Amino acid sequence: MSRRPMVRPGGRSTRVQQAVHTAVRELQAEVGRPELTVPMVAARAGVTPSTIYRRWGDLQELLSDVAVEHLRPEAPPEDHGRLLDDLRNWAEQFLEEMASPTGRAYMRDALLGDPEGDNAGLCSAYAAEQVGTMLARAAGRGEEVPDVETVIDRVVAPVMYRILFRPDGLTGAYARRLAEEALTR
Amino acid sequence: MSRRPMVRPGGRSTRVQQAVHTAVRELQAEVGRPELTVPMVAARAGVTPSTIYRRWGDLQELLSDVAVEHLRPEAPPEDHGRLLDDLRNWAEQFLEEMASPTGRAYMRDALLGDPEGDNAGLCSAYAAEQVGTMLARAAGRGEEVPDVETVIDRVVAPVMYRILFRPDGLTGAYARRLAEEALTR
Repeated sequence: MSRRPMVRPGGRSTRVQQAVHTAVRELQAEVGRPELTVPMVAARAGVTPSTIYRRWGDLQELLSDVAVEHLRPEAPPEDHGRLLDDLRNWAEQFLEEMASPTGRAYMRDALLGDPEGDNAGLCSAYAAEQVGTMLARAAGRGEEVPDVETVIDRVVAPVMYRILFRPDGLTGAYARRLAEEALTR
Repeated sequence: MSRRPMVRPGGRSTRVQQAVHTAVRELQAEVGRPELTVPMVAARAGVTPSTIYRRWGDLQELLSDVAVEHLRPEAPPEDHGRLLDDLRNWAEQFLEEMASPTGRAYMRDALLGDPEGDNAGLCSAYAAEQVGTMLARAAGRGEEVPDVETVIDRVVAPVMYRILFRPDGLTGAYARRLAEEALTR
């Protein structure tokens, strides 16, 4: 991320980024991750390999950026009219997505090609934003709400820690229980 | 880890493992991580490169095994006579060790060269064992104690998640607060 220059939307920089990300996604599907090389991605994206090296450093950093793009939430959390229901549902979906083979692969890529931790920070910021949306909605309804960092500690952290370090027996029920305990204990 | 054959203590297998681990540690200190190669490690350890490839797969898996060795606790947690004090102190030390540049580098290595998650599982098992020791000691003193998995969720998971994904403002006081809340809320 630190190598990425300021991006002017619609400028050449944005077009290059989109072409390269698309090339990575297509080639991952076609030839698989282990076979992927920078020259192969460059050829598909219509840029020179040195454009990729200059901007991303190496293949692992590029894969990290692509992974973070995938981990960006596409919509705000569903609104069920009550924080407990919102958080329970969101926690369960978050666990399902992150613990899926695809989710694990992206999380791994995001961490691996990210020596300075910028992409890991982005992943966490996405989760914090989703949590913040639910809490603000609940506060607007007059509910008493914990702060974002508490929900990160109580729900997001255990889910992510267990996926990475202690994956046995991870279920939707576990995620829902974490959400309940974050609000009631 | 899956490549590692059953090790007979004192047998050739153990001697090779010790020699190779020692070579990695020495060379990391002398030439630094980025310069490390399998042939270099093999030469220092007095084995052939193919011995290393056969046993560890590649350099990253070898580094992952060496990292996990470093993350293994050297002693049981200090006994302060009361669970709250034991857990507060342990949480603070755990955070300090894991968040240090060395701790972060080992955690990263442990995760990266570990596609099947065995080494990550070992790291978590080490933490669970330390927590289990404190809880068993407290139960023996007649204290009421939570279960190991609760302490993992409430103390270990937030510390590890924040080190990896959300490292701003991590302090000993934060770790101590997690320990207090795990026992009182």
